[in-house]
Amino acid sequence: MADKRQLGGAVTAESEPEAKRTKTESENRREDGEDFDREHVLSGFKTSSVLSDSAREKSIFIHGKVADQDAVVILEKTPIREDALAELFSGSTLKLEMRNDIYSTYRLQAPPHLNEIKTTVVCPATEKHVKKYQRKESFLVEETEEDYKNITLPYIQKQSFSVQWVYNILEKKAEAERIVYEDPDPDAGFVLLPDFKWDQNQVDDLYLIAIVHQSNIKSLRDLTSEHILLLQNIFQKGKEAIFQRYNLPATKLRVYLHYQPSYYHLHVHFTNLGYKVPGCGVERAHLITDVIQNLQSDPHYYKTRTLYFPLTADDGLLSKFKEAGRL
Amino acid sequence: MADKRQLGGAVTAESEPEAKRTKTESENRREDGEDFDREHVLSGFKTSSVLSDSAREKSIFIHGKVADQDAVVILEKTPIREDALAELFSGSTLKLEMRNDIYSTYRLQAPPHLNEIKTTVVCPATEKHVKKYQRKESFLVEETEEDYKNITLPYIQKQSFSVQWVYNILEKKAEAERIVYEDPDPDAGFVLLPDFKWDQNQVDDLYLIAIVHQSNIKSLRDLTSEHILLLQNIFQKGKEAIFQRYNLPATKLRVYLHYQPSYYHLHVHFTNLGYKVPGCGVERAHLITDVIQNLQSDPHYYKTRTLYFPLTADDGLLSKFKEAGRL
Repeated sequence: MADKRQLGGAVTAESEPEAKRTKTESENRREDGEDFDREHVLSGFKTSSVLSDSAREKSIFIHGKVADQDAVVILEKTPIREDALAELFSGSTLKLEMRNDIYSTYRLQAPPHLNEIKTTVVCPATEKHVKKYQRKESFLVEETEEDYKNITLPYIQKQSFSVQWVYNILEKKAEAERIVYEDPDPDAGFVLLPDFKWDQNQVDDLYLIAIVHQSNIKSLRDLTSEHILLLQNIFQKGKEAIFQRYNLPATKLRVYLHYQPSYYHLHVHFTNLGYKVPGCGVERAHLITDVIQNLQSDPHYYKTRTLYFPLTADDGLLSKFKEAGRL
Repeated sequence: MADKRQLGGAVTAESEPEAKRTKTESENRREDGEDFDREHVLSGFKTSSVLSDSAREKSIFIHGKVADQDAVVILEKTPIREDALAELFSGSTLKLEMRNDIYSTYRLQAPPHLNEIKTTVVCPATEKHVKKYQRKESFLVEETEEDYKNITLPYIQKQSFSVQWVYNILEKKAEAERIVYEDPDPDAGFVLLPDFKWDQNQVDDLYLIAIVHQSNIKSLRDLTSEHILLLQNIFQKGKEAIFQRYNLPATKLRVYLHYQPSYYHLHVHFTNLGYKVPGCGVERAHLITDVIQNLQSDPHYYKTRTLYFPLTADDGLLSKFKEAGRL
């Protein structure tokens, strides 16, 4: 169910380039002998259609076939790294395009290892994967307390989205080596690890997720004053752990929850304030500091408040709001 | 004073990558014999500093020297082109990073001619060029009720930022022809007009501003339950006017206030929900629907609450927070 996580960023495919996982050497080596084949797994890839792309982000989402199996391939160019500049300048060739006064433009051809393209393959891919990466229109939904009880909650419960992958992380059955920090306390504790969307090569686009150990908090809607200590603990220790590991101070962090979230097990996003990451928009994000203050002044703030959030055209929850005449 | 308004949008170079000029063959040929040198013009480039970069947009702005001359070099990776995919897949090698179930990730190394980097050189560059491309670093500031009274309010009052241009609009001395809608009521009324950042050619990036007729409301901080009717009026009539003029329904709108605002005369932003406009991030934007609800449940919500917002390194208000030991 890792796919649910990747929804974490944003709503449209454009604004949510696929996450790259970090190196896990043990996994890489697990299936010896296949690595060579894997090096050429895409050489026979047949494109059926481009699901979406972003000229701004230099990414593309493609549906096609790998040896008769449906696949989704996501390509995204990598950020330009300062520490590679010297080698880039000395090792590249330039094709002059235009020169005018003090301005000139070139096409720079770089050594391939300095200009990699992050590639994610989902194979075999289901219809659901294909739909997920298709560019989609969004609508702002208004959800009252009653809407939540009558529409959203029944929908979440009926879908019973699996969060097995979350339990795998919390129980160290998966991704244990990726954990940046853990507070093991069953009530106030959490696990902090890099989001799939962050390649960890530079702090510019730093993105970590804190996943709480408590397993009965679905989302912001479930939070009451009982959870203030939990939230304060995540905020405080998360900031400290990030400063220690990445040297990024709290004044450079945007710390927030999503509503609706991508998966219904409470988690908190830590992103670099300077990085305009998808999903940080006011229509979906809630600063943890605001959440804490709101719960301090009204224990049932998030139970009773009308909340607004965007849903994409193909979201099952949107259909439910439409059926109920709420859109 | 139009410059104050433009601060409303993007401040950093990130959101405004340098335009690429098109080929002008005649210019290319003008100085024969130099083209070979030009191919290696950057091989001796010495980086002095990175002025700014964008992990999302895969661009970087560098200050340095080309043969003793000051230069600014801008690199930006190129969008992935659909028509080059087949050649890209057949001609690249993949390095496996991670495999888990149906997901695998790779680093793809492409033939250089299929993966070019757009390069712009400004040489010789002046101090002005260097400043233009410099990122203004942002810091998240925490402003308590006391901080507002002791630091922010005195700063605003001392600066006495001119909002004469706002009065010109409200009094129809300027931009009268740009007004999309007006409610002339002195208490609940406002003027709705397109933001300067919107060229009005397409609704994809629709951006309008509602400026209130009341002249004594500086910002969100001044709002109390007395202003609920004003806010509801702006929200309701603004939505209607936008639907009538641009055929964009309310479910496609993000309606919010900024804190800190760019100018201290209350105004409300209406933007297309699908447009990830600078300034719509949770760290600066406040949904008008949230503001209304918060004032309904607590008349002094915004007077008493600790508010968080980003300030750039060169902002005078940031210096005041630093002097007060609040950063």
